[in-house]
Amino acid sequence: MIASIAIGLTLLHQSSVPAIAKSIFDKGMTELRAYEFLAELTTKVGGRPAGSPAAEKAVRWGFQTMKELGLEKVRLVPCKVRHWVRGRPEKLTMTTPNGNVALKCFALGNSVATPKGGLAGEVQEVKSIEEALQLGERAKGKILFFNGPFDATLTNTFQAYGGAVGQRFAGASTAAKVGAIGALVRSMTLDPDDEPHTGAMGYQPGLPKVPAAAVSIIAANKLSEAIHQPGGATVRLEMSCQTLPDAPSANVIGEITGTEKPNEVVVVGGHLDSWDLGRGAHDDGTGVTGSLEALRLIHDLGLRPKRTICVVLFMNEENGGEGAEAYAKFTESSGEKAYAAIESDSGGFAPRGIGTSLNDATGLNKSWLGDLRQCEINAFTAEGETGADVEKLARFGTFLFGLEPESQRYFDYHHSRKDTLDKVNRRELELGATSLAILSWHLANDELP
Amino acid sequence: MIASIAIGLTLLHQSSVPAIAKSIFDKGMTELRAYEFLAELTTKVGGRPAGSPAAEKAVRWGFQTMKELGLEKVRLVPCKVRHWVRGRPEKLTMTTPNGNVALKCFALGNSVATPKGGLAGEVQEVKSIEEALQLGERAKGKILFFNGPFDATLTNTFQAYGGAVGQRFAGASTAAKVGAIGALVRSMTLDPDDEPHTGAMGYQPGLPKVPAAAVSIIAANKLSEAIHQPGGATVRLEMSCQTLPDAPSANVIGEITGTEKPNEVVVVGGHLDSWDLGRGAHDDGTGVTGSLEALRLIHDLGLRPKRTICVVLFMNEENGGEGAEAYAKFTESSGEKAYAAIESDSGGFAPRGIGTSLNDATGLNKSWLGDLRQCEINAFTAEGETGADVEKLARFGTFLFGLEPESQRYFDYHHSRKDTLDKVNRRELELGATSLAILSWHLANDELP
Repeated sequence: MIASIAIGLTLLHQSSVPAIAKSIFDKGMTELRAYEFLAELTTKVGGRPAGSPAAEKAVRWGFQTMKELGLEKVRLVPCKVRHWVRGRPEKLTMTTPNGNVALKCFALGNSVATPKGGLAGEVQEVKSIEEALQLGERAKGKILFFNGPFDATLTNTFQAYGGAVGQRFAGASTAAKVGAIGALVRSMTLDPDDEPHTGAMGYQPGLPKVPAAAVSIIAANKLSEAIHQPGGATVRLEMSCQTLPDAPSANVIGEITGTEKPNEVVVVGGHLDSWDLGRGAHDDGTGVTGSLEALRLIHDLGLRPKRTICVVLFMNEENGGEGAEAYAKFTESSGEKAYAAIESDSGGFAPRGIGTSLNDATGLNKSWLGDLRQCEINAFTAEGETGADVEKLARFGTFLFGLEPESQRYFDYHHSRKDTLDKVNRRELELGATSLAILSWHLANDELP
Repeated sequence: MIASIAIGLTLLHQSSVPAIAKSIFDKGMTELRAYEFLAELTTKVGGRPAGSPAAEKAVRWGFQTMKELGLEKVRLVPCKVRHWVRGRPEKLTMTTPNGNVALKCFALGNSVATPKGGLAGEVQEVKSIEEALQLGERAKGKILFFNGPFDATLTNTFQAYGGAVGQRFAGASTAAKVGAIGALVRSMTLDPDDEPHTGAMGYQPGLPKVPAAAVSIIAANKLSEAIHQPGGATVRLEMSCQTLPDAPSANVIGEITGTEKPNEVVVVGGHLDSWDLGRGAHDDGTGVTGSLEALRLIHDLGLRPKRTICVVLFMNEENGGEGAEAYAKFTESSGEKAYAAIESDSGGFAPRGIGTSLNDATGLNKSWLGDLRQCEINAFTAEGETGADVEKLARFGTFLFGLEPESQRYFDYHHSRKDTLDKVNRRELELGATSLAILSWHLANDELP
């Protein structure tokens, strides 16, 4: 047994990158370990918002897992994170001439609480930030209801998200600007169900901080219908969320040290934190466990890259990005150079492409794509999306990459209680993990074509 | 309102194919009617094996739906179908030195029943038909257990299915050939759960008909483990399935009659029957409702093709293909010429490509692919898979096409109780429906590039 393994490894070292890519792929698709890691993270740790005890448990889990996988230089890169807590379950009640109706809502991340006894008022519906800014007197003392839907005619749902998410992030400050007292925001999703989708919002300095909550699509539709009926509707919102002092936390990193250029690092990563609703399976458990699996595959095949390949589990992508900033500073102070960085933060669905920061992907598509087609990668996209964490490395001239999976289902689950393990397919996740492994192997051993 | 619709239609008639393709796409993705049709078919009709009352209900549903959509020449194309019924729930019991264990199994379609009191025997495991044929004396009087798994290193799961499904179709006759008394077959799936996946098997003329059943992956693993333990394992199988006399049934067809070449027909279709387990959502409810939606979009946009576009809901693809044969004969006798035919029978997942019977897809990829990229079609594939129903038209020189969706999840549900509506995503299904509409529009109006 030992003899045959040794022979296998010798052959592998002699073989071409396509043969290595095939070995990585076959091992990944046969063993499907990314899903096992994800099952651990989502069931043993669960939802893990930055600053929470669960997030610290996730840090320990990441550290322990990297140690068990036999990675080198496993360590924590400390950071301080914003620490927002949801408090007691939110309550949103709509009152119409026909009586009271409870509507499903969750506070948006960073929102202040409502006053004691709740926030009550008339509702003014708008479909965009721009429309809100035109309200004039009609906004005064009202609760603004940002009800602009995703554009369903955009094929890529991330584009549709991009067109709507301004309402979530800036809705409260826009409300404050025009004299409104609170903001309700239609959930950032295309799935017409009764689960609110939370996410980060921010307060613009110098303006009053008014409470902001996400309402489910069903709640949004009910509210919109009611306020256009004779007699209209008022709402009462109760939330007890608050922001505590910044909390200590950390990124977790581990590596396979390079043989020729150990200080040139190829980063592969996702973010360890999630929102508190659900289990952070697709956002971003799959990025975390796909990245761990990528390094496991390379390590267990006995492969040694020329440059160092480093897995980075970033802390608090969702609500501040302090982990990514701390990692960027760490590479600077440690004398390392992040040569390239790949982020997986678009879900664990079947891969379709890889976005790059390069303004021309012709060479990549000619030279490296062949090894990635087995992972269902169709193309590298020039000037594509990469990832919020690795973008902090752009200032060092790092070449950035981002895994682009099939997007249709991502926002069905995103930031909601539905983001759980059962929404992930073992093979779709592993196809992504093997593509991370193969791309990082190319980046660590070759020059960019 | 009426005026603006009229202006819209006028503009549409003047516009280029890309503008028409965009109109089809936007209407489809905004209204998402394919999913509504599928919800009706899977909940009002349910599982619909050929010859069953549910299959006849499906025929009436298809007819009624086409009438309501305003299609022309809505009619039935009669056929006789094989009529197999499952009977009482199957029972499979494994006996080991430690006692009895119930294992999950379902009879394979067309299997004979076990003798009264059940079929009992020792189990002989093989991983392929070839291995079974080499068994010699070791097969005599045994129940053969075909336990060859899918090759997990094949990216496209249909290829993995192709490598394993011979055990299901020919396992029983192979068993009979070597003197065995029955066949158990590992489910044709990559999902390691406890749901057996049924499907068609056939008896080779001149050999004894021995019973055949599919066992779940968990059952297959338990059985394999037990028979390799000291003391081994025997099984007892009870099934009461039977084949009744052929039953009358029908395909359902309806069309948008062409303006210039009404006798040249572009067929768009899927199969109306399903297995009795589950609800036939992905196999092939999505093909049926995606095809209906394709014609609805073209019809409701007021578009008139040069060639006729005909939706065909084929009867009994699963267990005989008599509907497809009847439709082929119908086109011949009616003086119609099936110019081209598109089948959707690979699930309602996000589209990835379109297979063609052409031996060169360069022209298609250059000329028509641009209009289909919004539906997530990456490429036309020369000499690709098209579909078992439309292949009956090959003898007329019909150009054949097949929708190729993402394949990773298809065999998780295929032919099992898990093939239900909740496994289908509205947008993924509609992307396929819009691609069927756009491709059929091209085929009905242009010459093949």
